[in-house]
Amino acid sequence: MDSLTLISSPVLTELDKFRDLFNRSLDSNNELLNSALAHIMKKNGKMMRPILVFLTARLLGSVNDEALHAAASLEFLHTASLVHDDIIDESTERRGQLSVNALFNNKVAVLVGDFLLATSLKHSGLTKNYHIIDVIATLGQELSDGEILQLANISNTGFSELVYFEVIRKKTAVLFAACTKAGALSVHASDEMVEKLRLFGEYIGICFQIKDDIFDYSESKEIGKPTGNDMKEGKLTLPALYVLNNKPDGRITTLATKVKNLDASEEEIAELVSFVKDAGGIEYAEAVMDQYKQKALDILLSFPDNEVRKSLQVYIDFVIARAK
Amino acid sequence: MDSLTLISSPVLTELDKFRDLFNRSLDSNNELLNSALAHIMKKNGKMMRPILVFLTARLLGSVNDEALHAAASLEFLHTASLVHDDIIDESTERRGQLSVNALFNNKVAVLVGDFLLATSLKHSGLTKNYHIIDVIATLGQELSDGEILQLANISNTGFSELVYFEVIRKKTAVLFAACTKAGALSVHASDEMVEKLRLFGEYIGICFQIKDDIFDYSESKEIGKPTGNDMKEGKLTLPALYVLNNKPDGRITTLATKVKNLDASEEEIAELVSFVKDAGGIEYAEAVMDQYKQKALDILLSFPDNEVRKSLQVYIDFVIARAK
Repeated sequence: MDSLTLISSPVLTELDKFRDLFNRSLDSNNELLNSALAHIMKKNGKMMRPILVFLTARLLGSVNDEALHAAASLEFLHTASLVHDDIIDESTERRGQLSVNALFNNKVAVLVGDFLLATSLKHSGLTKNYHIIDVIATLGQELSDGEILQLANISNTGFSELVYFEVIRKKTAVLFAACTKAGALSVHASDEMVEKLRLFGEYIGICFQIKDDIFDYSESKEIGKPTGNDMKEGKLTLPALYVLNNKPDGRITTLATKVKNLDASEEEIAELVSFVKDAGGIEYAEAVMDQYKQKALDILLSFPDNEVRKSLQVYIDFVIARAK
Repeated sequence: MDSLTLISSPVLTELDKFRDLFNRSLDSNNELLNSALAHIMKKNGKMMRPILVFLTARLLGSVNDEALHAAASLEFLHTASLVHDDIIDESTERRGQLSVNALFNNKVAVLVGDFLLATSLKHSGLTKNYHIIDVIATLGQELSDGEILQLANISNTGFSELVYFEVIRKKTAVLFAACTKAGALSVHASDEMVEKLRLFGEYIGICFQIKDDIFDYSESKEIGKPTGNDMKEGKLTLPALYVLNNKPDGRITTLATKVKNLDASEEEIAELVSFVKDAGGIEYAEAVMDQYKQKALDILLSFPDNEVRKSLQVYIDFVIARAK
């Protein structure tokens, strides 16, 4: 059995219901909107976030309509932010197919993202749980806040690891944290339990983003985006920040500054990538990721050993070990 | 006393509370986000929509926290859609100052709009009224749907008045309809009453948009945007559609087709504008607007005569007679 099958096996029925709900929500009379939505739906992704909502709910109780609509709301919000991020990053590809902005144009992509955000709001209301609505609204604010922070940070001169963690918390970790928090809220868990599971999701999210940032140093074609892509967008992530702050060197600082100013050539980016690799940047980032993995595991292992806990353990391993 | 003072006099306390709530919601630690939000706040607009929520609530009862948060949610949603529309329309000006996309760039404008949408969601949750949440979510879907429809329609060859009404319903009238519906829902009115007031708002919204479209034929500098602006964006509105469908002429059809294809020169647009004026397009649009005004008045006059009803009557007159 592969990891994804193992992870989703306790919530297969729920995932079927989710898929049905998700697809039914994306039907409109508007031809242009419909064709954009159909394009997005072609590649559904691995449903990592709905699975996390359902497994968290199952860890404490069962999956009810609150969890189902919370998962739909979160997935729509996530999908909307991907559509808008591709405009921001001027990406032409998403999950191995053309991005909405590339297939149509930026205008259509802005509006399709807005439609998805409104659909997210619709499902948040259908949870009929004000705590969940607040989680999703706050998440929406943090995701855009995080992206703006990243935009602003590109033009900053510093190489702060602190700012990096603030960005990945607001950009990625909050989404995973919202999934586990909503899962816990859907079964009306205690405040203490909700906070514990929120943190559990946050740690997984931090691992997820560090892994994503490490991918950018990989030469594999499998990951679906070219190596050094972040640097082409002016972004310096954990491996480079570590080296910049701990292995001071005039040449690398010059290169990193050029990257931040969107001034670096392909060759210079390749030089910086190989410098970071040689100076142990990847190993450092992996070690930090492992620390967060351990924190997530510590929380998970406080729950009774059962099929759901096992799935969540494989979930964490999968986030760390996935090939893309 | 000018019209706006007269309109808002029954809800002055509520508008103060609203302003306070609205401003407090737009504070973040993120410098770039904050400066964009401060820029948007500089020109608050005439608060036509919050006033409509409050007056409708007052027509049936009093203004409570549900109405207050509904008004905030609707105003944030409206502001977000303006920020995103300026990207779509490539506008550099909004309310006499630079648009967010012009002052910063499209990327920042996409994300600031998303932040405002999430803030709208936040306030919809704070109404703790699921009917109001659903009204706002549906509105969000319809607004983006309407804009996409308009984008698609630009490239259509037909000159259908039916499609025009579908677009203005989804693009503008739904917003006014949501204000009156939310106002009625905030005082827990009967289904029948809610529907009656929703229609009241829809009729006002249709008047508002037709008036806006007529402005585009005006030569006045007061309106804050150049004459023929819609045509420059490939949009044909009611005055032109009437003439195209009712005063068939080879030359005007050629010009209109060029407009739709974004192919018309400044001179050709000026020629089309003056053709439409001479053929009675403006008078026709004004007559249609008056029909909708009458429908709105018919509903309003079914309520007892009091200060609030008087304000709503002046509100309708103001929508029709406003100079910009």
